[in-house]
Amino acid sequence: MNRPTLAVRRLGIDTWRENVAFLHRDCPVVRAAGFQALSKVTIAAGGQSIAAVLNVVDDAHLLEPLQLGLSEQAFARLGAADGDAVSIEHAAPPPSHAALRRKIAGERLGREDLHAVVADIAAERYTKVELAAFVVATQQYELDREEVLHLTEAMIAAGRRLDWNGSGGGRPIVDKHCIGGVPGNRTSMLVVPIVAEHGLLCPKTSSRAITSPAGTADTMEVLAEVELAPERLKQIVHAVNGCLAWGGTAALSPADDVLIAVERPLAIDSPGQMIASILSKKIAAGSTHLVLDIPVGPTAKVHSEAAAQRLKRVFEFVAERLGLTLEVVLTDGRQPVGRGIGPVLEARDVMQVLRHDPQAPQDLRAKAIRLAGRMIEFDPAVRGGDGERIATQILDSGRALARLEAIVDAQGRRAEPPPPGPLVFDVPAPADGVVAGIDNLRLARIAGLSGAPQMAGAGLDLFVKLGDAVRRGEPLYRIHACVAADLGFARREALHDSAYAITGGAR
Amino acid sequence: MNRPTLAVRRLGIDTWRENVAFLHRDCPVVRAAGFQALSKVTIAAGGQSIAAVLNVVDDAHLLEPLQLGLSEQAFARLGAADGDAVSIEHAAPPPSHAALRRKIAGERLGREDLHAVVADIAAERYTKVELAAFVVATQQYELDREEVLHLTEAMIAAGRRLDWNGSGGGRPIVDKHCIGGVPGNRTSMLVVPIVAEHGLLCPKTSSRAITSPAGTADTMEVLAEVELAPERLKQIVHAVNGCLAWGGTAALSPADDVLIAVERPLAIDSPGQMIASILSKKIAAGSTHLVLDIPVGPTAKVHSEAAAQRLKRVFEFVAERLGLTLEVVLTDGRQPVGRGIGPVLEARDVMQVLRHDPQAPQDLRAKAIRLAGRMIEFDPAVRGGDGERIATQILDSGRALARLEAIVDAQGRRAEPPPPGPLVFDVPAPADGVVAGIDNLRLARIAGLSGAPQMAGAGLDLFVKLGDAVRRGEPLYRIHACVAADLGFARREALHDSAYAITGGAR
Repeated sequence: MNRPTLAVRRLGIDTWRENVAFLHRDCPVVRAAGFQALSKVTIAAGGQSIAAVLNVVDDAHLLEPLQLGLSEQAFARLGAADGDAVSIEHAAPPPSHAALRRKIAGERLGREDLHAVVADIAAERYTKVELAAFVVATQQYELDREEVLHLTEAMIAAGRRLDWNGSGGGRPIVDKHCIGGVPGNRTSMLVVPIVAEHGLLCPKTSSRAITSPAGTADTMEVLAEVELAPERLKQIVHAVNGCLAWGGTAALSPADDVLIAVERPLAIDSPGQMIASILSKKIAAGSTHLVLDIPVGPTAKVHSEAAAQRLKRVFEFVAERLGLTLEVVLTDGRQPVGRGIGPVLEARDVMQVLRHDPQAPQDLRAKAIRLAGRMIEFDPAVRGGDGERIATQILDSGRALARLEAIVDAQGRRAEPPPPGPLVFDVPAPADGVVAGIDNLRLARIAGLSGAPQMAGAGLDLFVKLGDAVRRGEPLYRIHACVAADLGFARREALHDSAYAITGGAR
Repeated sequence: MNRPTLAVRRLGIDTWRENVAFLHRDCPVVRAAGFQALSKVTIAAGGQSIAAVLNVVDDAHLLEPLQLGLSEQAFARLGAADGDAVSIEHAAPPPSHAALRRKIAGERLGREDLHAVVADIAAERYTKVELAAFVVATQQYELDREEVLHLTEAMIAAGRRLDWNGSGGGRPIVDKHCIGGVPGNRTSMLVVPIVAEHGLLCPKTSSRAITSPAGTADTMEVLAEVELAPERLKQIVHAVNGCLAWGGTAALSPADDVLIAVERPLAIDSPGQMIASILSKKIAAGSTHLVLDIPVGPTAKVHSEAAAQRLKRVFEFVAERLGLTLEVVLTDGRQPVGRGIGPVLEARDVMQVLRHDPQAPQDLRAKAIRLAGRMIEFDPAVRGGDGERIATQILDSGRALARLEAIVDAQGRRAEPPPPGPLVFDVPAPADGVVAGIDNLRLARIAGLSGAPQMAGAGLDLFVKLGDAVRRGEPLYRIHACVAADLGFARREALHDSAYAITGGAR
């Protein structure tokens, strides 16, 4: 049976990571081939083909019966011109579909299986439904360490890999990463300039927030552009020894980037996926040495020393097999680091530490020096134990501040940072007493309701931390928001439960 | 901050079960509130509100900056008129989100939790990603029998329930169901007219195919309308004692209908979801007595007698708690039933049995008589053991044929059934020998590639079954397709592995 020719039409609809095709209900192909809404289809033009999900259109205003509409990303990916002839077929399932089904059924996947799955994800051949199924089927402890190794390997293989060959003059390419879970923990923006100033290459790529009120990329974006193409990123690191970029756009681990888009709405962040996500991006960025920060605390991502040790061993297993030198550091995750939570407020804390502001949060300073010290000791010329002293000198001399400014200029300085959200509410202490506990998850949730990280100025400013004395009615923290509805949501949640436990009085 | 008023616009895009809203990238609300592609939003107009996923549009042809576009279903659900003022907010997570996350993490859910989840699903407050996560997190043996009971109860509570009060004159309202997995198994289209002719009320609702080449609704649709509103369905059953309708449109279990849309592309069909799906629809349809057919065979859904017994016990537990009289019948699931696989070919088999055609498949006839007999024995006036004899009389007298014709007329007779797909390929036996095994799953897959059930005429016509002798080169079965590409896919798959094992020669 011959099918009529269809003309492609760019519809200018942003459906983000899912390719969507549109056909009119009266299109002869819809009737002849039995296409339905949400059918998976393959669309081809000029030797190029893409997978897409079909939407059926009843409105002749949008599309004529002999046109095939494409969402913005699908159109870009197909690479055809408006009006070009296209063909459409029922899609065969993606090559890894059998492996996906076996994983859903609880089976162990081999190296080939995981490479096939990741290749399909990176090529955007999975629907959102299939992505969600993979994410749920591989969460918690559903991946063993060999599977995590193969998932990591596959994620590296699916992306670009930066090569610093020669640039380091044989010196290590260093990086740091925190597994997250502790709000306000913006040490990277201090550690990268210190280490870069010492002379090591530190091409740091970070993700945006997955389930937290701000990721390093969100906070850095207050000051500078973070979406850098790989070539640009390389030039910057050659010029100033370091960068603070967003990994996704840098095309280093496209599969991971697709997966995060599904993990985020589900608030899933499971060990195997986390290890593969972190290590694949670090290795793809060309790092040879990594310091990994695992905060431990009752409301951090890792609740106990025992769980931290278990996670540490899998990280070390995968890193060792892939030739990455890894130092895991367990840190105090019982409360937020610094005072600000949210992009603008965290950027303020970082600048206070760099500028020796008397208001600067000392816990953020101490933690940054500790981590930078461990990275500096990756330098073979540095004696074991000297790292922290060197880091402190670089910070106190103002050289770290100058280096961060140089990195910001190199990435592209943005206009003056916006002020914290103008709509505020101070959350009062319910009684006299001492701060005995702070719930990181609840604080992150309240900060999220205030609008962070989408609204850079939104978030929380903490006035007291563990061990501080407070009097009844004194503010524990201030909520900043940019929109009245957001302030209302965050305020209601904070008044219901502030996330602070005060001893010597009722919480 | 005051937001500008937006005017709603009906976009006529069929996104099926997912509500999609469209805003122009230059819409002031997009910028002010930090909306992104795929943000979850709540849209309100005139006291009504819906949840939707946001797509951002760059094309002024589609949408002006102060318009808010809605997909067809979202528009219908909101119930506003084109041009009405609407408001849009970031959506709070659906009320059951915490329960969903706990289930994903492997916890057991309570009655309230499952009612909240199902209420959210039925109200279409879950995204496809959330639906997929729920389906995967509750599959295999992840639901215990109490959870299955609560899920079933919640699915009934979320839909309409038909009430036959008085119509049966105190007689049982009977139904039958097969859990599926065996192609060609169209006994319902024989059993319903036999039982209706005996005088019992049999309001049968079936799903369309989930992972198979045809469901009863798909096959019945070859002859009659199957999408019947509940009131219509009631009138039909009053008039002719029985019906063969599609459960989804009858609004009996809307949550199940939403879930099936996700289970289908993932090819997931797990015990707990299956039990809740089947029993919720039967009870919502007002059935008091049910015969359940569980085929057992190496390539059926249930592989062993032990697994069938385990499944039977959970079915019985839930049915007993919900006041449904249940008879479970284990049947031979080692090969397809009848000859045809696919809607048109299966309808042909059914009509051959009703018309005493010499070609009529005897296995289909025998199985239908067995199941109808068990149902007829639900009639308190029938002696135990007499059911099969009564069923045989009704079939042989031609009364079952007349009754099916009456049901078809009542539901709305369609034009003459289409012929089997005109493009054919005969799959040859590789050697002389005897048919020693038939792989149901593989045959279903080949039938699916041929275009069934979307293309009603597509599918397979089996010439030999278990125990039959064949000679090398003789056809095992014929592939029917309506589109050349489909024939090609199915033929390639069949030549790779025909799904038939022949002893006395290589397969």
